[in-house]
Amino acid sequence: MELKGVGVGRGLAVGPVLCMPDPLEEPALVRRTTDAAAEASTTRAALSAVAAEFAARGATAGGTARDILEASAMMASDPTVLADVDDRIAHGLTGERAVFEAFRVFESALIDLGGRMAERACDVRDVSRRVIARLRGVAAPGIPQATEPYILCAGDLSPADAAMLDPDLVLALFTRDGGPSSHTAILTRARAIPAVVGIGADVHLANGETVIVDAARATVRISPTELEVSHARRVIADRASAASVPLRAGALADGTAVPLLANVGTHADAEAAVTLGAEGVGLLRTELLFFDWVVAPTVEEQRAQYTEVFRRFPDQPVVVRVFDVGADKPLRFVPTGPPEPNPALGNRGLRALRRNEWLLRDQLEALALAQAETGADLRVMAPMVNDADDAAYFVDLAHEMGVQGVGMTVEVPSLALLADQVLEFSDFASIGTNDLTQYTMAADRMLGTFPQYQDPWHPAVLRLVKMICDAGAAAGKPVGICGEAAADARLAVVLVGLGATTLSMTPVALADVRAELALHTLAEARMLAARALQGRTAADSRARASVALH
Amino acid sequence: MELKGVGVGRGLAVGPVLCMPDPLEEPALVRRTTDAAAEASTTRAALSAVAAEFAARGATAGGTARDILEASAMMASDPTVLADVDDRIAHGLTGERAVFEAFRVFESALIDLGGRMAERACDVRDVSRRVIARLRGVAAPGIPQATEPYILCAGDLSPADAAMLDPDLVLALFTRDGGPSSHTAILTRARAIPAVVGIGADVHLANGETVIVDAARATVRISPTELEVSHARRVIADRASAASVPLRAGALADGTAVPLLANVGTHADAEAAVTLGAEGVGLLRTELLFFDWVVAPTVEEQRAQYTEVFRRFPDQPVVVRVFDVGADKPLRFVPTGPPEPNPALGNRGLRALRRNEWLLRDQLEALALAQAETGADLRVMAPMVNDADDAAYFVDLAHEMGVQGVGMTVEVPSLALLADQVLEFSDFASIGTNDLTQYTMAADRMLGTFPQYQDPWHPAVLRLVKMICDAGAAAGKPVGICGEAAADARLAVVLVGLGATTLSMTPVALADVRAELALHTLAEARMLAARALQGRTAADSRARASVALH
Repeated sequence: MELKGVGVGRGLAVGPVLCMPDPLEEPALVRRTTDAAAEASTTRAALSAVAAEFAARGATAGGTARDILEASAMMASDPTVLADVDDRIAHGLTGERAVFEAFRVFESALIDLGGRMAERACDVRDVSRRVIARLRGVAAPGIPQATEPYILCAGDLSPADAAMLDPDLVLALFTRDGGPSSHTAILTRARAIPAVVGIGADVHLANGETVIVDAARATVRISPTELEVSHARRVIADRASAASVPLRAGALADGTAVPLLANVGTHADAEAAVTLGAEGVGLLRTELLFFDWVVAPTVEEQRAQYTEVFRRFPDQPVVVRVFDVGADKPLRFVPTGPPEPNPALGNRGLRALRRNEWLLRDQLEALALAQAETGADLRVMAPMVNDADDAAYFVDLAHEMGVQGVGMTVEVPSLALLADQVLEFSDFASIGTNDLTQYTMAADRMLGTFPQYQDPWHPAVLRLVKMICDAGAAAGKPVGICGEAAADARLAVVLVGLGATTLSMTPVALADVRAELALHTLAEARMLAARALQGRTAADSRARASVALH
Repeated sequence: MELKGVGVGRGLAVGPVLCMPDPLEEPALVRRTTDAAAEASTTRAALSAVAAEFAARGATAGGTARDILEASAMMASDPTVLADVDDRIAHGLTGERAVFEAFRVFESALIDLGGRMAERACDVRDVSRRVIARLRGVAAPGIPQATEPYILCAGDLSPADAAMLDPDLVLALFTRDGGPSSHTAILTRARAIPAVVGIGADVHLANGETVIVDAARATVRISPTELEVSHARRVIADRASAASVPLRAGALADGTAVPLLANVGTHADAEAAVTLGAEGVGLLRTELLFFDWVVAPTVEEQRAQYTEVFRRFPDQPVVVRVFDVGADKPLRFVPTGPPEPNPALGNRGLRALRRNEWLLRDQLEALALAQAETGADLRVMAPMVNDADDAAYFVDLAHEMGVQGVGMTVEVPSLALLADQVLEFSDFASIGTNDLTQYTMAADRMLGTFPQYQDPWHPAVLRLVKMICDAGAAAGKPVGICGEAAADARLAVVLVGLGATTLSMTPVALADVRAELALHTLAEARMLAARALQGRTAADSRARASVALH
């Protein structure tokens, strides 16, 4: 059987499958019908079993993992929590609910403590989930524990689960839900794990069954023949040897330069970017440099971080996005106000920064200092800009703080529609295809429920990209792509055909995109773009542009 | 002092102000530090005081209000709830938290019972809030109780609060937050209550102070002079006598017909539409006809409802929107799946219907039957359509079920961008400006935090409207407006200038829009539209189009 989905990356993998159990539902708030003593004893037993399980895993693990696992074992046997669980059972709750509530209180207490303690909150949730799963007699949710490489099969991955994927163990993965801009896709692409997301069906497989995941063809082969397996293994080996080609500057077959830049969020990313031949940084996600900070970094602390990144890219452009806060990207030291019914449509990006202007001023000052110190070819851009009024605010403030080379991330449809106004006075635009797709399609990128909409190949998104590129060409200003779309080698060609002047991506995608661009002339890229624009759906646009590509 | 905001409607009002207290925060989940007996006794006292307050209000009220208030009094003295509160206090909670939790359990139990019992759930919440406010020694939240007409001042109104506004008591209102597409704006406009929303500042006024709210000028005058008050009263009297002009068909000064249709959600709306001279229905919100149904209506039950509406509009067009479910519009009998992080970007409208096709088939069949029975000039449209694939699905299914005249609500930006593809085979388009604005600006229409974005005057929205109208003109298909924008008389002229062929609005806005259209020729409307398109912000577009208008 062959399943079809949306491919992430171009990789191929063969291996045994491990399925991830579905997430647990919250235990119902109902009165217990069993005897309190019996319920308490069953619950205690589940708690000790989970504590023992963590202790055993801790004993075999090394380094940080051991500390974390041992801390989890202690949480599952913490006397205060155990007493609270008993208390709640005595008070009429079921064991499951009592565990759920007692650990929730524990979790809140840790969050209130802040700092390193707060970071343990998700471990508490993990312990609680495992105890509840044991009480229900179902498999514990989360990434399976494995010691041998495997292919992961899941309904969907939470951002936390996706972040835990170990590229040394997970050969590939496929999911029922999820689109090409989902977190699963972004994180798997960043770790170079081949994936097929959004296959749209629940698959029931026995753990250990062999499957072939082909991200380039967007297929998952269940129960392959021996011939298919050996063929796949040969292709994998061939590709591994081909990957060691020399690093070149990005260019089309006719020599048209298309600088290939890197999306960078950590110093490790920056190092990988240099190693993999990035021609600069197209998106420095500054909020990730200060992700776990509780107090806002000072100008001096920021300057030191930026200087360290800038030094790695002498004589190359570095495009810095100022703090993108709010929605799925909380920074603990930026107040973003009360919870919102639709955080993606709320107080985030430049909106939140305008309300905390001190932070934006500090950041711009630190960037100007780091630039002066390193002589970097610095450009700065703002996230979540809506219109020329927002853009003018940012340009003026950046100039005031000594930063030149000021542009906008285009991710709100309104800014795409008004790009002509904004490019009159901004120095460049950089299209964030993930959010631009989310808003244009009104489909949450965090959910995997509508993969047909959450796809930057959609002709509506391509039409907006064209509008922005046309405005850039008319104003003589560069327009780059910094969303995930640039990491899709086939789409990268189409984006260049639409008028994108640079492409920025996760460093591991550079080789693929570099190779694909070299196969096409500018005239071909334009012809493919024109075809893709005529598509009626994302799949249709992809098909129209792919016929001639391969 | 004069405050500026965004005007809703064109009304003017003078009167004493009453301020609505800010909503209460959820009581913290902390251990009580006081003595249990003392805490229980204080809490009991607050519960009885609130019960007494409801009983007293019930005694003076009549009809349904009396029943509801007496039921609330009983909830505040329900022995099971009181025991649960005591229990939770004994268990270590504060009185506030114990009340919050016990009433939340009560509320859940009512919701689980469904039907009429479930409808009482929000009354439970109201009782709980009042008790907590009393324990904190702050004013109870919600719409103030008043017996004399007043002007309401609030931070923002929840949809529930807005729905409770009594047009006989609330002369006008002004809010700190909220944009022109917020629920507050929609509901106040529907009740013909003049409003100025999004003034952006907290105003501290003594209850009873006189203020003047001028929705047309979008101003709130605090501490007006006697001359100002008497001038305002004279204007109000003049307008009242001018309002009794004869009903005419909508047309521009040069005779160009612009049919003025009504947005209708209830049979009362339909009656008002006829009385106020609507030339048909531009948007029948069918989900509102079955708002409180727990079980899906049968084909026969639906046919009866639709027939009743259709009969009121012989020889006039009736545009029906099939069930718009999900996000802020839950229908209890339609499963929309687990909660979503951003419901506005989730499973709603046609997306939810495609997953429950039986429901869509039943509705289309009932509409075809009602049409056959009444000979109505029926057109049907789908909400939340993304692209030509979605549109083709709906057109095909409607034809299969015997419905002709099939169009699309344009509210997702992608559909606006692809309108040329979709209008090739759909019979018409109707622009839902509220959601279109929300998605284009990536700004939640339910929040009042970004009124500068939540405004259909924004040039980005106007540019999308123009694209849709141009596509309609090219395909020879009509393009109507059914969002709130059509009820803004000045914007209505601009929309006609952009190419809208019909305008549909809340019935009370018909007179204003009819009068305004009659002042301008088509050439003028086009000139104003061209000017508005050049704006850089919503305020700028409004100003550019208003200079010549008044």
